[in-house]
Amino acid sequence: MALEVLILGSGSALPALSANQTSQVISCGNQLFLVDCGEGTQVQLRKNKVKIQNINQVFISHLHGDHFFGLVGLLSTMHLLGRRAELTIHGPKGLAEIVEIQFRNAGSHLSFQMIFNTVEKAGEVIYEDAKVVVTSLPLKHRIPCFGFHFQEKKGLRKLDGQKLLEYNIPVYARKSISEGEDFRSEDGVLIKNAQLTNDPPKPTSYAFCSDTAYYEKLIPFIEEVDLLYHEATFLESERERAKKTFHSTAKDAATIALKANAKHLILGHFSNRYKNKDGFLQEARMVFKQANVAEEGKVFTV
Amino acid sequence: MALEVLILGSGSALPALSANQTSQVISCGNQLFLVDCGEGTQVQLRKNKVKIQNINQVFISHLHGDHFFGLVGLLSTMHLLGRRAELTIHGPKGLAEIVEIQFRNAGSHLSFQMIFNTVEKAGEVIYEDAKVVVTSLPLKHRIPCFGFHFQEKKGLRKLDGQKLLEYNIPVYARKSISEGEDFRSEDGVLIKNAQLTNDPPKPTSYAFCSDTAYYEKLIPFIEEVDLLYHEATFLESERERAKKTFHSTAKDAATIALKANAKHLILGHFSNRYKNKDGFLQEARMVFKQANVAEEGKVFTV
Repeated sequence: MALEVLILGSGSALPALSANQTSQVISCGNQLFLVDCGEGTQVQLRKNKVKIQNINQVFISHLHGDHFFGLVGLLSTMHLLGRRAELTIHGPKGLAEIVEIQFRNAGSHLSFQMIFNTVEKAGEVIYEDAKVVVTSLPLKHRIPCFGFHFQEKKGLRKLDGQKLLEYNIPVYARKSISEGEDFRSEDGVLIKNAQLTNDPPKPTSYAFCSDTAYYEKLIPFIEEVDLLYHEATFLESERERAKKTFHSTAKDAATIALKANAKHLILGHFSNRYKNKDGFLQEARMVFKQANVAEEGKVFTV
Repeated sequence: MALEVLILGSGSALPALSANQTSQVISCGNQLFLVDCGEGTQVQLRKNKVKIQNINQVFISHLHGDHFFGLVGLLSTMHLLGRRAELTIHGPKGLAEIVEIQFRNAGSHLSFQMIFNTVEKAGEVIYEDAKVVVTSLPLKHRIPCFGFHFQEKKGLRKLDGQKLLEYNIPVYARKSISEGEDFRSEDGVLIKNAQLTNDPPKPTSYAFCSDTAYYEKLIPFIEEVDLLYHEATFLESERERAKKTFHSTAKDAATIALKANAKHLILGHFSNRYKNKDGFLQEARMVFKQANVAEEGKVFTV
């Protein structure tokens, strides 16, 4: 299946005219997931024509402002537009109180129900539906911070219409065959599943890792991931600053991608001191060829 | 003296691509005052080249998000840029807690001191320095909401250098003469102040009134104001909606300007249902000729 990542913001804490703060929309298994929500995210959603009322799950990595200051504004807008559908917000302890105190002071009785799911541990399934599992990832930052791993579930096997006719398979048996079972006919003949079906599209995976210092404990959680977003606030020339602020360099991000055997890497969360992103690409590709840079409005498809 | 109002946002609750949420910068008596701070205000400040560290007084009218959701982001940026100067935030009860809880969760120890001045009553002097007095104004909205009246103080009288020489006025006497006193020479001759000085520039005034229903109790507080900003969320065709939501129409705003004998009127806080602002201008000018519309980046000078 296709998994898409739409970048709404590639910048870090200090906002710039050319870069928004962190936010991404993940399209996966017929759902839209919003990951992080820096100031101005709702305008970015509008600019990129994302239907905000179709977002039912929001994931907030941590409580530094550039990752969530746009959340309460987005929720207000959902309310003002008459949203009815429940919305679940997965995020760190403290987020519920921050949101609720603002609506309380505004005298707003929201038109929809918010459910807060506190993320307290890495490696836990924090969301699951028929098509996707989302797991929390360990990151190393100045305050509690979690990444998110989106894993599509294996789809049903694709029935081969021609073969179903040929073997005269009754309709009632199709469901179990698409689930991978063999078929035994009334006269006892066994028809192996592989004769009737083709492999489903390979399930894809995506890992969002921001903000974090270089952190090898993350690797086992994201092994073989199809697409890895890893923050790269700095270049190696600012290694000391990266260390001090618990951020990564482009080389750090690439090293994690390499060691995790990721297929593709997106770099983002760039410090606004860098006027263009060429240095990030160069530095990362020295270590990991399949590296790209996040950019507002860009879509990465797995 | 010149008083300038820079419009950062002309829109209302639902953000649009073309309109930011309410925020204005008032330049008055060598100070920059920020009034309201909707989401995205810090980017608007940057776009309009306002030096954010020169803002020392912030005024928040009420706790609906489109008037303050950008505040904590702006404060974060001031902190990240190493601000040292104290910042005073004048606003409704509840604002301090909203701001503080977010910095607490972010683990931020601000580089500067924030002082919260809770505005609880209309008609009170909430800020005063050598050149300006700011008074709270009564507005009628769904939650506690105050406008702000900026009044320049009368400046010193302008000494006429030619006359000072002519009458042989000693240097020590100049201060009291500029303050309006007459001068008596050593031989007892009285020289009237008017012979030695000219009138100082007329002190100017500005009133910010958003959000509010049509509210005649506001009028005595803003009589003769040089420049009045009054919200006009709707046109008369949406009178019922204006009433229900405690907002004003363009005609309401113009009527207040007329009855208060204001010199000029700015309309703003437009609902995003109106694609252009011509209707607001027409409706207001039927009642009050000197009406204009707020627009992002526009500067009104008194």
